[in-house]
Amino acid sequence: MAQNILTYDTVALDDEKSALVIIDQTKLPGTVEILSLTKQEDIHRAIYVLQVRGAPAIGVAAAIGVYLAAKGIKADNFDSFYAEFKKAKDYLATARPTAVNLFWALDRMDGFALANKSLSVPALKQALRDEAVRIRDEDIAVCRSIGENGLSLIKDGSGILTHCNAGQLATVKYGTALSPVHLGREKGMNFRVFTDETRPLLQGARLSAFECFADGVDTTVICDNMASQVMKNKWVEIVFVGCDRVAANGDAANKIGTSGVAILANYYKIPFYVCAPTSTIDMNIATGDDIPIEERPGGEVTEMWYKERMAPEGVKVFNPAFDVTPATLITGIITEYGIARPPYTESLKKIFEAKTPGRKK
Amino acid sequence: MAQNILTYDTVALDDEKSALVIIDQTKLPGTVEILSLTKQEDIHRAIYVLQVRGAPAIGVAAAIGVYLAAKGIKADNFDSFYAEFKKAKDYLATARPTAVNLFWALDRMDGFALANKSLSVPALKQALRDEAVRIRDEDIAVCRSIGENGLSLIKDGSGILTHCNAGQLATVKYGTALSPVHLGREKGMNFRVFTDETRPLLQGARLSAFECFADGVDTTVICDNMASQVMKNKWVEIVFVGCDRVAANGDAANKIGTSGVAILANYYKIPFYVCAPTSTIDMNIATGDDIPIEERPGGEVTEMWYKERMAPEGVKVFNPAFDVTPATLITGIITEYGIARPPYTESLKKIFEAKTPGRKK
Repeated sequence: MAQNILTYDTVALDDEKSALVIIDQTKLPGTVEILSLTKQEDIHRAIYVLQVRGAPAIGVAAAIGVYLAAKGIKADNFDSFYAEFKKAKDYLATARPTAVNLFWALDRMDGFALANKSLSVPALKQALRDEAVRIRDEDIAVCRSIGENGLSLIKDGSGILTHCNAGQLATVKYGTALSPVHLGREKGMNFRVFTDETRPLLQGARLSAFECFADGVDTTVICDNMASQVMKNKWVEIVFVGCDRVAANGDAANKIGTSGVAILANYYKIPFYVCAPTSTIDMNIATGDDIPIEERPGGEVTEMWYKERMAPEGVKVFNPAFDVTPATLITGIITEYGIARPPYTESLKKIFEAKTPGRKK
Repeated sequence: MAQNILTYDTVALDDEKSALVIIDQTKLPGTVEILSLTKQEDIHRAIYVLQVRGAPAIGVAAAIGVYLAAKGIKADNFDSFYAEFKKAKDYLATARPTAVNLFWALDRMDGFALANKSLSVPALKQALRDEAVRIRDEDIAVCRSIGENGLSLIKDGSGILTHCNAGQLATVKYGTALSPVHLGREKGMNFRVFTDETRPLLQGARLSAFECFADGVDTTVICDNMASQVMKNKWVEIVFVGCDRVAANGDAANKIGTSGVAILANYYKIPFYVCAPTSTIDMNIATGDDIPIEERPGGEVTEMWYKERMAPEGVKVFNPAFDVTPATLITGIITEYGIARPPYTESLKKIFEAKTPGRKK
């Protein structure tokens, strides 16, 4: 059963049913359930409750989602079409406040619609479909390139620690932080991967462990608070994590706990790499202090997964979804255009300069 | 309901029923269940499955436990009595491999029996009872002194982070790491306490949060991986943790994750204190490298608390119960005889020199 999941794309478009097709990640690892979502409320909810999660996958899901909204619009001229399209876009943008890919993908679809306003409404719908599919295909290519770049840092048998899930399940294919692992597997290599379980939602235990194990990797689940011991034992030579948003100075917002892993890696002198598609890098944000941190309901901590409530009634809970790892703790930022090294203010700018000529808009 | 628990001693002797009376801590915080254990197998199991846990409480439970074994021995001379007593002692000593208090309490009862071999068997049994009760009363006094010493480091309204449970529930009364909090409450002070939930067994969420909240403290539960964010937010000015064993150089074994908290505190320049009754300090162990680390079943991580298995079948799990915090990361070790400061090789020796004259053996 664990073998099946890598044969599905994490996010897909079903043209016939006008549906966004996703693997329901809240059901993993026990059940592989494929959802076919046609209503905008269901697509919004899927992003909010993390049935689809991971910055790149959210971006692709939003692009397909807003295309499906466009497909359903009844209008005979651009202005009335666009008024409805804008509403659908703004609605989906509220599903997650920290995921820059969500806004990036929606803005790209928006800009694409505006750039093609001269088309007839049916032709524009078709063009928006192609743009959403292009976003998906680019995501696969980007992840593959990140994998190639990350693979240059490890060798057959390397010990790798990862936090949360920035794997294939967080993208359409390959993943970001786990792309070097999956690509290495394609090339006949193997690795020892330690996955922090990643409380409260356990994406590491449920998702990273699942997809690594399915890929034949030597996979060990640990509680978040065991990473220090794993590092002390010299079982890992490198840390790969994903990110939800990188500021221009290299500060990186990622799943809560990432900053703690970075501080541990720094203490144990283990290289700590953030895997970041350039769509995740926000050059308009100077530092991590400007990245808003989503707080989520305390019940995720105290009762969501348990047979019974696991903390006394009435006690307070602090449940931030993300934290910001300061650039000073990051050895390198692995993008599809190469690995940025400190100082990031310069190296990220160069990445964007290298990127712009070859990038279709 | 949360109010009731502080009125019970965590570990008690019921003479009439020849029973060890404990609060079943595996049932907290949902249910307050008092267990009355008369069989040695049940007492052994209670220590192994953590129905009673925390180094000091385990010591008192073992002392009462081995006294109850002694009480049941049918023998008319010391040698046949002692052969049975030794067996009971050796059996209880196997319940937890890392808890030095377990061995300390059993060895003290053993030494006491040998020192009083001239007594008749009934008189020796009575003397062993008094010794077990003395161990209990000393534990209460020790915890109170640790609380007084710890209280000198904080003030009304201080923010405190703690890991696992080294509270009243880990001792007979007051606790070690939480003794400053409970004593401060007796003096009309209040604090903001952040309790790491402490995976996999959640002693922080279930026990520390429970007893702090019951004591009227402003209590917030966080996942272990959120401590970095809490420290970054400057919400805590000090960390208090307990310990299971301290080496002569100040290295301290405590619940898994403690070393990670110490590394975070060091990074954020927050003082990190280990609260350690001298019975926990093992001057025969030079460094933390010589402290054996218990590994526990992987199922505690993957399925114990969950409605369903939370990691894929077949995946490996690393589940160490403890880690060792290096002395270099410890600001001070709070004992009942004062606060030891680095270098610990000297300061702990002085604590023991100060202790020996006043200590009854």
